[in-house]
Amino acid sequence: MKALEDKIKAEGKVYPGKVLKVGRFLNHQIDVPFMAKLGEEFYNRYKDDNITKILTVEASGIGIACLTAQFFNVPVLFAKKSKSKNIGDDCFVVQVTSYTKGIVSDVMIEKELLGPEDRVLIIDDFLANGCALEGLLSLCKLAGATVAGAGIVIEKAFQDGGARIRAMGVRVESLCRVKGMSLDGGVEFYED
Amino acid sequence: MKALEDKIKAEGKVYPGKVLKVGRFLNHQIDVPFMAKLGEEFYNRYKDDNITKILTVEASGIGIACLTAQFFNVPVLFAKKSKSKNIGDDCFVVQVTSYTKGIVSDVMIEKELLGPEDRVLIIDDFLANGCALEGLLSLCKLAGATVAGAGIVIEKAFQDGGARIRAMGVRVESLCRVKGMSLDGGVEFYED
Repeated sequence: MKALEDKIKAEGKVYPGKVLKVGRFLNHQIDVPFMAKLGEEFYNRYKDDNITKILTVEASGIGIACLTAQFFNVPVLFAKKSKSKNIGDDCFVVQVTSYTKGIVSDVMIEKELLGPEDRVLIIDDFLANGCALEGLLSLCKLAGATVAGAGIVIEKAFQDGGARIRAMGVRVESLCRVKGMSLDGGVEFYED
Repeated sequence: MKALEDKIKAEGKVYPGKVLKVGRFLNHQIDVPFMAKLGEEFYNRYKDDNITKILTVEASGIGIACLTAQFFNVPVLFAKKSKSKNIGDDCFVVQVTSYTKGIVSDVMIEKELLGPEDRVLIIDDFLANGCALEGLLSLCKLAGATVAGAGIVIEKAFQDGGARIRAMGVRVESLCRVKGMSLDGGVEFYED
């Protein structure tokens, strides 16, 4: 998606360790009007798939998930990374490794909120090594829900997550696919 | 707001320790079309205040903040609770106690994303003891930003946060104010 690639080139920053910082518009500050356009693009790609629920994981997936859900007129369910008093005891739980935080953590959803009647679109801001997406796929499997596919804002296509998950037969739609980046700020994309 | 009170009565659950669980529509699963109506209500209350930015804190404030921001056509900035590779080093940091998790944690925003030119509307899902809201007010003060007010979905008005923060001269608009609740599921509201 050309508008997204331009936005990343204009406002993104490359940090050591192949970290692409897009906190000006995606995962710290959220450029809501721009994100709504990305949500509409996800809708265009999945509108014929009878989506009943959008699933994401806290925290940075929530904004784009909500702005996407409006087009589908369905609820968002966000998986939680820690147990709080606000979540019940009867949960599906899987373990996920965070690339940006370098830790393994539980990710959970309440059982009563996802089931075999659901057709799920998974939305997330990044796809890199694929651990978060695999965790969400596992939660859907535990719930018996059908996964229509995933919608990713930025895929770091030089890491293996996208290829591995597509090889599992999961449809993954990424709005841009990063081929490589350099510390002088250059970001290269695969052409669609 | 009557529609919200009805929703809480129909879908909320009361847990021991005066915990009101609204994970079916607010802070685990998000009823996006319904939340968008709440966002419009916040817009109606603050539309003449020249809001430039909506500030919230991860994770459960993000959804309602984004759905509100659409009406104002402004970005959302969400304060982060932990340091990740996606956030820069130059941050405003304050400490906040979480009522539902029972821990003290740092809450931070990057300095470059909030400044004296901003007129901020703070949005959050709950107001109880007021610690999260005070933390966000402190971040705005550190940034030199003007706070137009706060928009809260559910105020637990039997706790002292709302009264204390209004006494500081901060405008707080809560869409419903819980007077009390009982374990048999009853939730009572103050009339507006």
